[in-house]
This record gives sequence, structure tokens and C-alpha cells, in this order.
Amino acid sequence: MSIYNAPLKDMLFAINEIAGLAEVSQLPGNEDATADLVEAVLEEAGKFAGGVLAPINWSGDREGAHWKDKAVTTPTGFKAAYQQFVDGGWNGLSCDQEHGGQGMPKVVAAAVNEMWRSANISFALCPMLTNGAIEALELSGSAEQKEMYLPNMVSGKWTGTMNLTEPQAGSDLAAIRTRAVPNGDGTYKLFGQKIFITYGDHDFTENTIHLVLARTPDAPEGVKGISMFVVPKFLVNADGTLGARNDAYCVSIEHKLGIHASPTCVMAFGDGEGAIGTLVGKENDGLKYMFIMMNAARFGVGLEGLALGEAAYQKAVSFARDRVQGRAIEGSSAPVAIIQHPDVRRMLMDMRSRTEAARGLAYWVAGRTDIATRHPDAAERQRNQALVDLLIPIVKGWCTETGNALAYTGVQVHGGMGFVEETGAAQFMRDARITTIYEGTTGIQANDLIGRKIARDGGQTMQVLLTAMAATEAELAKHDDAESRAICRSLKAGIAALKTATDYIVANYSADVRTVALGAVPFLHLLGTVAGGWVMARSALVAQAKIAAGETDPFYAAKITTARYFADHSLVAAPGLALEVTEGGASGLLLADELF
Amino acid sequence: MSIYNAPLKDMLFAINEIAGLAEVSQLPGNEDATADLVEAVLEEAGKFAGGVLAPINWSGDREGAHWKDKAVTTPTGFKAAYQQFVDGGWNGLSCDQEHGGQGMPKVVAAAVNEMWRSANISFALCPMLTNGAIEALELSGSAEQKEMYLPNMVSGKWTGTMNLTEPQAGSDLAAIRTRAVPNGDGTYKLFGQKIFITYGDHDFTENTIHLVLARTPDAPEGVKGISMFVVPKFLVNADGTLGARNDAYCVSIEHKLGIHASPTCVMAFGDGEGAIGTLVGKENDGLKYMFIMMNAARFGVGLEGLALGEAAYQKAVSFARDRVQGRAIEGSSAPVAIIQHPDVRRMLMDMRSRTEAARGLAYWVAGRTDIATRHPDAAERQRNQALVDLLIPIVKGWCTETGNALAYTGVQVHGGMGFVEETGAAQFMRDARITTIYEGTTGIQANDLIGRKIARDGGQTMQVLLTAMAATEAELAKHDDAESRAICRSLKAGIAALKTATDYIVANYSADVRTVALGAVPFLHLLGTVAGGWVMARSALVAQAKIAAGETDPFYAAKITTARYFADHSLVAAPGLALEVTEGGASGLLLADELF
Repeated sequence: MSIYNAPLKDMLFAINEIAGLAEVSQLPGNEDATADLVEAVLEEAGKFAGGVLAPINWSGDREGAHWKDKAVTTPTGFKAAYQQFVDGGWNGLSCDQEHGGQGMPKVVAAAVNEMWRSANISFALCPMLTNGAIEALELSGSAEQKEMYLPNMVSGKWTGTMNLTEPQAGSDLAAIRTRAVPNGDGTYKLFGQKIFITYGDHDFTENTIHLVLARTPDAPEGVKGISMFVVPKFLVNADGTLGARNDAYCVSIEHKLGIHASPTCVMAFGDGEGAIGTLVGKENDGLKYMFIMMNAARFGVGLEGLALGEAAYQKAVSFARDRVQGRAIEGSSAPVAIIQHPDVRRMLMDMRSRTEAARGLAYWVAGRTDIATRHPDAAERQRNQALVDLLIPIVKGWCTETGNALAYTGVQVHGGMGFVEETGAAQFMRDARITTIYEGTTGIQANDLIGRKIARDGGQTMQVLLTAMAATEAELAKHDDAESRAICRSLKAGIAALKTATDYIVANYSADVRTVALGAVPFLHLLGTVAGGWVMARSALVAQAKIAAGETDPFYAAKITTARYFADHSLVAAPGLALEVTEGGASGLLLADELF
Repeated sequence: MSIYNAPLKDMLFAINEIAGLAEVSQLPGNEDATADLVEAVLEEAGKFAGGVLAPINWSGDREGAHWKDKAVTTPTGFKAAYQQFVDGGWNGLSCDQEHGGQGMPKVVAAAVNEMWRSANISFALCPMLTNGAIEALELSGSAEQKEMYLPNMVSGKWTGTMNLTEPQAGSDLAAIRTRAVPNGDGTYKLFGQKIFITYGDHDFTENTIHLVLARTPDAPEGVKGISMFVVPKFLVNADGTLGARNDAYCVSIEHKLGIHASPTCVMAFGDGEGAIGTLVGKENDGLKYMFIMMNAARFGVGLEGLALGEAAYQKAVSFARDRVQGRAIEGSSAPVAIIQHPDVRRMLMDMRSRTEAARGLAYWVAGRTDIATRHPDAAERQRNQALVDLLIPIVKGWCTETGNALAYTGVQVHGGMGFVEETGAAQFMRDARITTIYEGTTGIQANDLIGRKIARDGGQTMQVLLTAMAATEAELAKHDDAESRAICRSLKAGIAALKTATDYIVANYSADVRTVALGAVPFLHLLGTVAGGWVMARSALVAQAKIAAGETDPFYAAKITTARYFADHSLVAAPGLALEVTEGGASGLLLADELF
């Protein structure tokens, strides 16, 4: 049902040519990540994704996770697949070697994580959450906490969860009410209900380590009074063995549109005597620690969008090759495979080009993250971190919106069969739908983008990006083939539109934040589209250089075609998106509430 | 769960001011359809939709239709609601009075049908299919067939189905294999399997009248050898009583993404001794009859898109008013309802303005259909029919794509709750997904549009529409308030883009149909967007005139705001869409099949 072939060649192209693996593998600590090793890792990961995870993706959707007696059972095959995943050492791929990880660069982890998400997003959520919890403990945990939890979490023997949301506290964590009462012995008792907790309970492992946001008794109101606690499902004895069952239970799971195999839990902490936990870092600094992890989490969700676009594309191509229906529009002696129909081809090219753009951009950001983390020069780290911070809302917001659009198109390619669940195309669309919502909705990404990432530094970081884009445009302008001219024309218009919209935001944000914010999401789409177009233009330049140097693999000519397609069909939207930003604020705010 | 309030004021505005009820009700046979009567009909329909159909929409989705022993059971409450629907006389609202219908104009039926679809699309499919079958029999049936079937179908005592699709014959009906063998007594025995048959079986009524496409023994190959047959579930005796059970059975139903309460049947005709049917019209003319009905069917599906946009909008507004989350972006002393957040407002304005545009356009086309049907002057009939033919692919293709986009946005407004099925927002998204597929995919609509509707007459009908649009633009240009200027600017750019793209299609269609067809769907979006913008501009002009004449109801100022919003946020996409058409053909066709 779900067939997935990791697009190794495309991934390696993006890693090597767009993200710049050569640069990344020269960073201190990354020396092992040679091109050969990376290729070998990706090949193995591709086998695991296609051979183990994809085959249980559709059955997992149909069967779903089940809850009974405060415990969750995952669908058939998931537990065994998780054990294989752990045995293969995949869980700690990019974790610090200090705690048993393999310390692979983010750019390599990005490709591998894309595979897990394409093959089986419900499965992939579990290690994604565990990795988030690992990162939180690595950054802010005490030596004792690290020693007690990290080795087993890095290996995957135990999993991790993030407990933020409460019924009244969704996007706004200021409203959190869960209480943490000190026991006087350094531990706390937690009381409260958390909702939307991914893999809050499951049957994969003997223990689950919950990170929980809660308030101590004298905490200030709002976001300044939130602390982070680590609350294991089973308490851990000093010798590392498991102790008593903690008072943290899954009391129900959600009935959702998608990701059915991933249990989304309502967690009750302290329904009985109180859930025992320990403070992570300092009291009242919980949200700060969350924000530190947030880039990684948002990047991870952005990958989900791209991954589902790829999965939907593969399925659609396979169907379009096999399904014979109708004569060719120019006439044919017999019915043809629908891949021959121009409109089907348009849909496939849309899926392919936008997935490539999203991948190129996400991997490039992953590469910048590696540099921001490990470069010996502080200024280089800072410069790259600023670019990462600017583009994380794009990877999260734009790649997930794109993934949804492409999964929708994937259904369309299948015609009536796309609407039948057994086909499997609709599952990608259902699964994708959460990606623009969790870890901060697209609207929240867009507000972060225009406020913290653009207005706050007066558009300086954006100017760095615009300068890089202009350099690519200038490079393209030296070529006078039809493809380069077409790409260059759209890229030029896109860059100009992006600059106009950026200037508008910088000029008006302080004075009229509501009007500017009305255009936040259109601006997010604008930046995503132009940045995606820029990445595609760079792909085209690389491919042209290879071809000029004698390369005959049609893979490279295809890169140029896809880049031109993206310029012709996606980048052309940029000026319209800029108008939405610069002209469309007022009319969005005029209508009185009661007239809606 | 599902609350629906028919937007009577908006509907009446569209009927009276955009579609021109005054003109329609002067047509011969429409004299009864006065503004007062129409308002009264809509009020009653609104009560039925909100009071009877909406309350079983979500429960119907959860329960679904069930199949056992070759028979379908519909969800709790559906059978009773259907009986109320029939008792209320709603089934024959726009049917010919000759067979017991009420003969209401199409423009009135459009509004009423929109209501059924908003409140409960799964339910509404049954009368929609019956009406299609009625129309086929009215147009092509023999006097005997009409007498035998029409009165009971018009009243709703019996329902009707359309049996076209077979596993190998989806969009391409040339591949139909179902056989019809003459019995020598004027009847035929049918043998074959049909799939995707909406309400192919159910428990609403004692009888179901199937219209079936099949081939007679000596029929020519392809589309020229398809005949239409009427095959009742129970044979009908000469005295009108029911006779033997016919050999036409539902052998399974599909497990679908949406419209769960609507049984989508696999129908086996003649698994035993053969299903007895009679020929409708002439042998081998079946597809011609289908095409005659097609405008009505496609219009009906277009309404579904608009209706689901409206339903999703109402639900999203209700949630956005109630849900308190986060401070205002400009600062606030306490958390606010999310309708205060600019991005939520943007989403609601998007939903509202695009639904209004789709409604205005659809109702206007319905009014033109009334004129094309009943105007005493043949030239007027022809002129209006040409406009209808041009715009049916837009009502079908653009309104349904719009409905899907808006149902998607509706989920987004709900945040995490949108992904939880109990909320009900996701149902609209799932239900909407079929609308761009059945009755001809968006790609098929777009090919029809550029080929039969534009290239074939050299763009003449399109010129009529462009001229009407230019007149509105000229009228707007006389106003110099900010709203009129903004709308005028976007409309002007939109018209220019539409003209450029039309000229391109007319000039290149014959010489390079594949390249032109690559841009067919972008062109469909372009025409929908500009026609929608035109309708919205007309709304603004009407509202301005009312206000200038002393009208103080804020409803009219809101119409101007929504029109401007549409211009600022939807119409601005027109030039980019035109570029996709005129520049984007080549790159979509370059990639070799094996490289996908």
C-alpha cells in the first residue's frame, strides 16, 4: 500500500550542492561526516524507511492506536519496528556522542529524518519527541538528571515527551495551570491535566520520560512563572533500575483526522497522590528552555511537510504511470497512461518542484545550523544563527503549507480512487493537516517572522539573505540560454517583491502592528516562495556547471527543468503576495466583529 | 455539533442584485417568482436546512452508511429527514410543473440547493442525483417512461441514480463495457459492473430508478456506441404498482475520506439473469444525453464547493468568537478572543470574501441559465447559453477548489481542536475533497474551458464577458473613494491579465495544444478569480449606491469591505496566474516520463 523509495540522489544533491556538506564536514567534531559516509548512512536509512516503516504506514492508519485501562496499545508491527529502529542505532544519530549518540551533523540528520517522516510520520513522531526531550535535558538538565535519563533516551530504550498544552493554554502558554508543589527533598509533586501529548503513553518501551511545564506555588503570573519538570512514567532508582509507577497516566486519546497510529494523549498528572518530578534548570525559566529547543522542534515539523510532499509525489507518479485513461489531448490511437496528459504532468511537476525547493531550503538551513553550532569563529556562528532564526518560521510554516498543498494534489492525481481510503493517497493529506498547527501554527510562525526576525533587527538579517539571492541572480544573468533567462526573470521579480514587502514591514511594524500583521502569512509565503526559488536557481547553476563539465546524467538536466518550472509556476506568485502585504492590511481589519 | 444558519441576507443580495431576479421573474413561466415569494421560500428552506439536515450531519459522518446482504442502511435520522424533505415538497422545487414540480427558477433553486449542501452534503447528494435523472428522462425519455417514472421521482417517492463509471472507465467513458442485450420485446437485459454510484442503494424509498450507460451488441466502439437505459430497482407494473425485484444490486460500498453518510456503491447489473431495462431516447446517443445534463450536474457540484466554504466559515467564526487565547498583538490587559488576532481575521475574511465571490458568480450563472432557457428571444437565449457554457467549468472547477481551500482554512482557525474529529471542522475538509473530482475533475473542466469554450469560438464569448467586466471597471473608475480605487486597480490588472491569457490560448491552441493545456488549470483559476472579482466589484457598486441613497444598514458597508478584501488578497494573484499560462507551458512538458 505505502511504497517509499528514499530519493537518495536528490537528497545527496541537496546535502552536497545546496547545504554544502564539504563546508559542514570541516567543522570541529564533524570530521567523520565525509561524503562517502553520509551516502552510506543515507542508503541504510533508506532501506529501513522503505523496508520497515513504510509497510506499516497504511495499516497503522487503519488500525490506529488504542487506549484501555490508562494504557495505550500501538498498531500491529509498530513495537517491533521501534525495537529494530533502536537496535539499528537510529535514535541517537545526531545526539551528542557524550551520551551515546553518533554526533552526525544536522544536515545529515535532516535527510534521515525526512525519510522516517515520508515512510511513516506516525512512527517518526516518537523519536522526534524523544530527541526534543534529549535536547532539553542536554541544555538545561543537572548532571544527575543527565546521567539518570540521557543514555537510555539517546539509545531509545526510553522515550521522551513534551507536555505543554492544557485545554485553556494552547498557543498561549501563559495560561498554564498545572501546579508543582515542592516536597522539601528536592522533588516536586505535580498536579494538572495536559492535552495533545504525542506518545504520552505507548507500548514501545519500559519507561517514558515526560518533560512538563508547570507553576510552583509562588510563581509569578503569565509566562514568567513557568518551570520545567522531568516526570518519568516509572521512577528511576539510584542504580538505574525502575522503581514505582509514577502518578502520571494517559486518561484518553484523541480521535483525530490523521496520524492515527500516533497516540495523542490526555495526560493526568497527580490524579492520585501527585506525580513526582524534578526541576529542570532554574525555577520560572521553563519557557526559556522551551524556546531554546523550539528551533529544532519547528525544523522537525517543517521536515514533516516536505516529507509528506515527497511521499505523496511518489505515490502519484506511480499511479499516473499505471493508470491508462483517455486519449492524448493532441490525439492518440489508443488510450494513454495519464502521465501523458498535460494537466497530470503539471500536477506532478508542481509536486516535484515544490518538494525539491522545500528540501533544498530545509537542508540549507540545517547546514547553517551546523555552522552556527560548531564554527570556531563566533562571528560566523552568530551570522549563521541569525539566518537560521530568520528561516525557521519558513521551514516550519512554508514547508508544511506546501506539504499540505501537495498531498491535496496527490489525491487529485488519483481521481476518484484518491477519495477511497484503501488507495492511501488520502492518508497523506489527513496526516499532513496537523503539521501547520502543532509546534506553533502558520500564523504564529508568521508573526514570529515579521516581529522578532525582521522588524526587531530592522531587516538586517533579511538583507544578508537578499544579498545572497542577488548574487545568484547576477550569476544566472551571465547565462543566456532560455532556462536561465526564464529563471532569472522570475527570480529578479521575486527578489524585488520580497525587498518591497520587507521594507514595508520594517517601516510600519512599530507604528501599526495590526495592519502589518494582517499580511504576516502572505509574507511568510512570499519569503518561502522566493527563498525556494533562490535554492532552485542555485540547483540550476550547479547542474549547468556539471553539464558544461561533461556530465551526461539526465538527472542534472532534470534539475534545470524543475528549477525553471518552479520559476514559471511558483515564483511568479511573488509580486501578488507582496501586494497582499503592502496593500491588503487595511481591508482585513475594517469589518466590525459582530458583522462576521 | 453542526450548526448552520442559512445566510439569507447574503443569498437574497446575490439573487436580487447580482443574478438579477427582477429580470428572471419577468421571463415567461417565472412570473410567480416574485421577490417576496423567493424570500419566503428561502426562509422556509433555511429552517429545514438548519433544523433538520444540519443536526444529523456530523452524526451521519461518524455513523456512516452500512452495507449488508446487498442492501444499504443509511445513518440514524436520514430516512426520517428524507421523508420530511419529500413531505415539504422540496424535491421538485425547480422541476417542471407538468410532472408535479414547482417550476421555480434556477437562481432560486441555486440558493436552496446551497443550503442543503451546507447543512448536510451527504444528504443533499440523493436529491441531486434524482434531479439529474429527472432531467435526463424529461429531455430524452419516451412518453411511457415519463409517465411511469417522473411523477414519483419529482415528488421524491422514488430516487434516481446515474451509472456511468466502471473500473476501467472513469474520466474516459469511451471504455465502458456494460452490455445491453435486446430481449425482442422492447426491453433489454443489462450485464456489467458500475462503480462510484452515489445512493446506488439506500433505505429512503421503496424504489430507485437507475440510469445506466451500456453498449448494445452491435454498437460502434468508443463514445459513439454508448446508450442510456432506465433500470428500476423494482420493475413497475402497468398500473404503477411495484413488480419483481430487478437484477440490479449493490454489492459493496466504498470506504471513503468523506461524505460518509452518502453510500457510494459498486452496482452489479445482471449478476443473475440480467437486469431489465428500457432504452432512453435513441441507441448510441447515450453520451449526448449525458452531456445535456452535464451543465446542471456540474453546476450542482460547484454549489457544493461554495456551500462547504460557507459552512466552514460559519463554524470558524463561531469558534473564533468563543475561543480566548493570547494577548492582542498590539498589547492588551487580558487574553482576547482569537477573532481579535489579525491573522485569524485574515483567515475569516478570506473565507467570507471568497465564499461571497463564488456565490455571486454561481447565482449569476444560474440567472443566465434561466434566461437561456426561457427568454422569448432566441438570440438572447443563445447569447446567455454561451455565457453559461463558458462559466460552468468555472462554477464547477473554481468554486470547488475554493471550497476545499476554505474548508482547509476552517480547520486552521480551530488550531489543534481543528484536527480533532469531534470538533467537526475536519469533516467539511474531508467532505469537500470529492468535489474537485466527481462530475469531471478540475483538469477536465479546465480542458473543456480552454478547448470547447474558448479556442473553439476564437474567444468570442470570452470577449462578451470581458466587455461586461470592463464596463464595471469603468463604472468604478468614476468613484474616487479609497475602496473603489483599490478595487478598480486590482480589477483592471485582473482583466488585463485575463485578456492576455485568453489571447494566448486562442492564438496557440491549434498549433500547440499540449503546451497550452499545461496552463489550463492556472487559466481556470485566473478566470474564476477575475470573474469573482468582477462580481465583488458589482456588489460594491450596488452597496455604494444604496448607501448614497440613504441606506444605513452596515450590511452594505460590509459588502464594500469584503469586495476590497477580495481585490487586495485574491485578485492580486491574477497577473501571476496569467504568467503561468503564457510562460509556463514549456517547462511543464520537458521532463521525460522515466525521470519522474
